[in-house]
Amino acid sequence: MALIVQKYGGTSVGTVERIQKVAERVAKVKTDGNDVVVVVSAMAGETDRLLKLAHQLSSNPEDRELDMLLSSGERVTSALLALALQEKGFKAQAFTGRQVGIITDSTHTKARIERISADRVREAVVQGIIPVIAGFQGINEKSDVTTLGRGGSDLTAVALAAALKADSCDIYTDVDGVYTTDPHVVPDARQLEKISYEEMLEMASLGAKVLQARSVEFAANHQVPVRVLSSFTEGKGTLVTKEDRDMEQVVVSGVTYDKNQAKITITGVPDQPGIAARLFGAIAAAGILVDMILQNVSQEGMTDISFTVPKGDAGKAVGIARKIAREIGARDVQLKEDIANVSIVGVGMRTHSGVAAQMFAALSKEGINIMMISTSEIKISCVIDAKYTELAVRSLHDVFELGKERG
Amino acid sequence: MALIVQKYGGTSVGTVERIQKVAERVAKVKTDGNDVVVVVSAMAGETDRLLKLAHQLSSNPEDRELDMLLSSGERVTSALLALALQEKGFKAQAFTGRQVGIITDSTHTKARIERISADRVREAVVQGIIPVIAGFQGINEKSDVTTLGRGGSDLTAVALAAALKADSCDIYTDVDGVYTTDPHVVPDARQLEKISYEEMLEMASLGAKVLQARSVEFAANHQVPVRVLSSFTEGKGTLVTKEDRDMEQVVVSGVTYDKNQAKITITGVPDQPGIAARLFGAIAAAGILVDMILQNVSQEGMTDISFTVPKGDAGKAVGIARKIAREIGARDVQLKEDIANVSIVGVGMRTHSGVAAQMFAALSKEGINIMMISTSEIKISCVIDAKYTELAVRSLHDVFELGKERG
Repeated sequence: MALIVQKYGGTSVGTVERIQKVAERVAKVKTDGNDVVVVVSAMAGETDRLLKLAHQLSSNPEDRELDMLLSSGERVTSALLALALQEKGFKAQAFTGRQVGIITDSTHTKARIERISADRVREAVVQGIIPVIAGFQGINEKSDVTTLGRGGSDLTAVALAAALKADSCDIYTDVDGVYTTDPHVVPDARQLEKISYEEMLEMASLGAKVLQARSVEFAANHQVPVRVLSSFTEGKGTLVTKEDRDMEQVVVSGVTYDKNQAKITITGVPDQPGIAARLFGAIAAAGILVDMILQNVSQEGMTDISFTVPKGDAGKAVGIARKIAREIGARDVQLKEDIANVSIVGVGMRTHSGVAAQMFAALSKEGINIMMISTSEIKISCVIDAKYTELAVRSLHDVFELGKERG
Repeated sequence: MALIVQKYGGTSVGTVERIQKVAERVAKVKTDGNDVVVVVSAMAGETDRLLKLAHQLSSNPEDRELDMLLSSGERVTSALLALALQEKGFKAQAFTGRQVGIITDSTHTKARIERISADRVREAVVQGIIPVIAGFQGINEKSDVTTLGRGGSDLTAVALAAALKADSCDIYTDVDGVYTTDPHVVPDARQLEKISYEEMLEMASLGAKVLQARSVEFAANHQVPVRVLSSFTEGKGTLVTKEDRDMEQVVVSGVTYDKNQAKITITGVPDQPGIAARLFGAIAAAGILVDMILQNVSQEGMTDISFTVPKGDAGKAVGIARKIAREIGARDVQLKEDIANVSIVGVGMRTHSGVAAQMFAALSKEGINIMMISTSEIKISCVIDAKYTELAVRSLHDVFELGKERG
């Protein structure tokens, strides 16, 4: 008999019929002799509906009140799923984040979990009750409702699984696992049986948005095995777990891409100390996340600086760059929006050399120019022209033999 | 500077535009130099929407989960109204029933308030913040969410007003006050300037559903002056307050009617001790509220027993009556559904005699037969044929001079 935490996302509980299907799935795990704890998101569309109401009433809604507002969506789902389970003859109870003792800091709308007691969950499980917990929420020291950021129900599930020392944390979503790359781009993309926390983090933050990044970090820190699977189909999904020897033998686990970045270049920058600090200090102060930074080799005391930011922040970043360019006497500021960031990820890179060269050669063979490069221990990213994105992804997927035929 | 508790019902906060109007109304009271505490209901239609979802998933939803579900509606409104006030430049914070310390018993879906701390409301008021409280809800000793029954937001407002020793508790609704009778039936029905708690209780429980009956009881017990007024029009509304000498000089304050009762008659009942106890014991055990009871004078050892129950329970009550009629050898059980209960209410009845005779004479003059009579200290009710309801109400309104010309 295992203790299994299951989490169902918004589309999995989007309608009355889907909630009934989820109830069947939960019921089966319980009937098979396991203890099961369920975490739910708001019904698909509900969070957006509430946000829209807030924005109709306020040009700049305060985060504390947004949290009170948005947390209600998950409460509704938890009550409804508990009712559906009761209707099937199971003992079930709905709980809020507060009731299961999820205590967070006070950073409303993206609070961090400080501790979690899970006492009432344990009590319920002992009594044979299926606890159904409203995800995405906790309370702070003042007893105000906080939320854990978009996708925060994943974090609720992982944190509960850690507190309960659950045997598995199953995240049900609308995809059936983690793939070697986007199957829409590469038809022979293969579903991964397992992937390490670190790879998953690189995949998730690069656009393969299956699991909230913070929940992966939390899972890694507490060694919670997380399984990503679909609530619409059968299948074993992908296990996200700690690195093992099998994984190291695979050089590259996946190819990801992100078209949501823009590149800003300042040309003719006087090559003096402190200029980069001033520029990126100002951009960070504006709350803009810079991904890659490239500085050319200086020629005649002048250099170029390029960096990428999310497209939504590009206008603001260009404004800041122009202001600083004027102040330091740089030549020009250029914005390029039609770019893509293509990356390969794999823990095997640590022990295999020549991976970067293989990647550059593959892109070069297709005539794709690399504008920027960034590397980490388990990831290599290249910025290229957006129009070559799919070609680059397919080519890298082939070169590193990620397709279905492979063992 | 006064401390005013305001409560806004579901239609008053039914749309974004109406929430904005409410924000303007609250803002004005604050700008005029008063402290204001606001209690809100769920947006009109929201509670029914949630109930419908519950009933689609469960044939017999558990009350604990229903409370978790339904309490979310008021939370949404409190957050939205707080946002609307912030947008106008006011400091405002949304609070749940739990956060303002409303502790109830564990009778889910119709919990009774056991105590109320209101600490956070007091703190907020001192800091110049307008607290906006989700009505209708509290928590029990186990920290589970409870709700106070339909109309429970009125009770939240009255209980908070009592705890805060507020100068006034203003209940904003979609009617502009309490009338001498239904203005749809009697065009010259007059809005009452004030009315006693006891009269209000008799009016409310008899169908003039403006204020939740339990909130009136609570207000009476704690001497909270309650004002009923419209959020759509200007006007002073009706003050519900403790009885005073002015009120006693008015014999009848209002005429009410209730078409939602049915009359059941058991004929040929052997006139033996214990039969009434057996019958009404069985009906009470089925959770059916009996309003009036009439037993005829015995003739030849036989009698008839008539009683009224809510129409929705009539079928069940007839079943019970038939069963007992067979057991005791009574002749027959008859159901009459087209009846109405017409009542006159007034604290002046205590000190004026002949009021009942005046009422019976008025009905008789119109040729209306009285089937049953019931009296209390401040109320006389007659059951009549439903088709005469409007005629009876108009005639009584005239006879007791409740029309606009008076005073």
